[in-house]
Amino acid sequence: MKFGRFAQQGHTFFGIVESDEVTELDDSPWGSYQVTRDRHQVSALKFMVPCIPQNFYCAGVNYAAHVEWAKRKGLGVKMPDKADVGYRSPNALIANGDPIVIPVDSVGPVQFEGELVAVIGKKARNLTEADALSCVLGLTLGNDLSERNWQSQDRTLWRAKNCDSFKPMGPFIVTGLDPMKLTISIKVNGRIVSKYDTGNMLFSLQHYIFQITRYMTLYPGDVIWLGTDGATEPDLKEGDVVEICNDEIGVLSNPVVRASAAPASGLRSARAPADEALPGHGRSNLRS
Amino acid sequence: MKFGRFAQQGHTFFGIVESDEVTELDDSPWGSYQVTRDRHQVSALKFMVPCIPQNFYCAGVNYAAHVEWAKRKGLGVKMPDKADVGYRSPNALIANGDPIVIPVDSVGPVQFEGELVAVIGKKARNLTEADALSCVLGLTLGNDLSERNWQSQDRTLWRAKNCDSFKPMGPFIVTGLDPMKLTISIKVNGRIVSKYDTGNMLFSLQHYIFQITRYMTLYPGDVIWLGTDGATEPDLKEGDVVEICNDEIGVLSNPVVRASAAPASGLRSARAPADEALPGHGRSNLRS
Repeated sequence: MKFGRFAQQGHTFFGIVESDEVTELDDSPWGSYQVTRDRHQVSALKFMVPCIPQNFYCAGVNYAAHVEWAKRKGLGVKMPDKADVGYRSPNALIANGDPIVIPVDSVGPVQFEGELVAVIGKKARNLTEADALSCVLGLTLGNDLSERNWQSQDRTLWRAKNCDSFKPMGPFIVTGLDPMKLTISIKVNGRIVSKYDTGNMLFSLQHYIFQITRYMTLYPGDVIWLGTDGATEPDLKEGDVVEICNDEIGVLSNPVVRASAAPASGLRSARAPADEALPGHGRSNLRS
Repeated sequence: MKFGRFAQQGHTFFGIVESDEVTELDDSPWGSYQVTRDRHQVSALKFMVPCIPQNFYCAGVNYAAHVEWAKRKGLGVKMPDKADVGYRSPNALIANGDPIVIPVDSVGPVQFEGELVAVIGKKARNLTEADALSCVLGLTLGNDLSERNWQSQDRTLWRAKNCDSFKPMGPFIVTGLDPMKLTISIKVNGRIVSKYDTGNMLFSLQHYIFQITRYMTLYPGDVIWLGTDGATEPDLKEGDVVEICNDEIGVLSNPVVRASAAPASGLRSARAPADEALPGHGRSNLRS
């Protein structure tokens, strides 16, 4: 099954995607949803981030060839000896089709990292590796955009990895796939620049879930980004289009722009709207 | 004004707190709320985490005496030369009164870090330092519980800082305070073990907001934890009660327990409930 999250004229909803048609659901894919009678053409809908995680886990470094490449580039990583997770922040999420905005003061390079992403569907604690996938709703794709200059200089990965728009995610959440038997391709301007098999992960999704749930409760909508393999070049520049591709999940495509020197500033609205005009952000007032 | 978030018989709501009485609101403190006619005695209510942030920022190291102490303890920190932020994860949040649970395999020490916390009330980007506080709804208190053995050994701070229950926050969000002119006291079993002035921050809240909003949009309900000063001893053990205290904000009090050897395991519910039975967690299905 293929789930998506879409907007149409200010209305945001989850849907089941079959070929180019979307059947609207009355709840989330991890809720007790019913299929409604509303059908839409995918082409008539705005893509939204397929879920906004409460907890946003990432493997960080999880493929040997990427670690070796990053070491040569002086990015301060080394081969991990265990599955310690890191975090990203939801402010940075954008949907399929939304622009990646390079900050005005970035001297770069800004690089893609095409990743497999697990979306949690059931609340879970203390799962074994054998049972770990039972809490996973499905898989999607992510692009862990990275500003390498800041990654080298800063104490944390905050702006290197979490600038607004630096975490494209989507297009769909697909159920029933084996996370260790997929091929991820990354294209820049239509040309394949990287291609790898998820079977080369240093630590499997199952192992990450086992480790995380020893200490932490996983909640529906939480995500675990599983790292990228190999080199992440060429550097991205304004006008590029970067695509993370998997035959079963789809294509996560985002254009690259550079922020202008005079950004919009200040306060926006006193109220968190039901769904932000900014791409992908549906926010709760924490009462429902 | 003093805002809290409470639960009573499964109903969760925000309220305005005046002495020992709570007036229920029909929306969040950062929404377009109306005061309702429902009043409650504080003593009749369950405290909830005052907000569940979408983005959970922390200063990490932000007081000189704490950095010097941590260096002596071999915790791998050094004096920061700029305001790079870190992240914590909402799974770890608990409310005033809820137990801090030391994981069964922790060899410790587990230590408190009593902190001032800023709660964002307005969406903001590109604020100047002079305007920075305009996006802040108010201030609360946090306890950045830390397992020092894992902090020293792991590649990231994931389980050292983000185990379930390791982030008590509350009791109230108080408006109109100067974040740089407060005194924070930490008590263990009623005895003051640490006391410091927030004026000693290395980088002010205003500066953090200026830096964050250069790259990231702050949203209502987001939080910025501002670090702790000095030593964070004695180590916590089962049966202790740890309190983070400020005369204007109140007392964040949590007992310490140790997890049993046979934790509850496996999947819980297929649906994210409106408000978790677990303390403080109200989760959205991302549609409202």
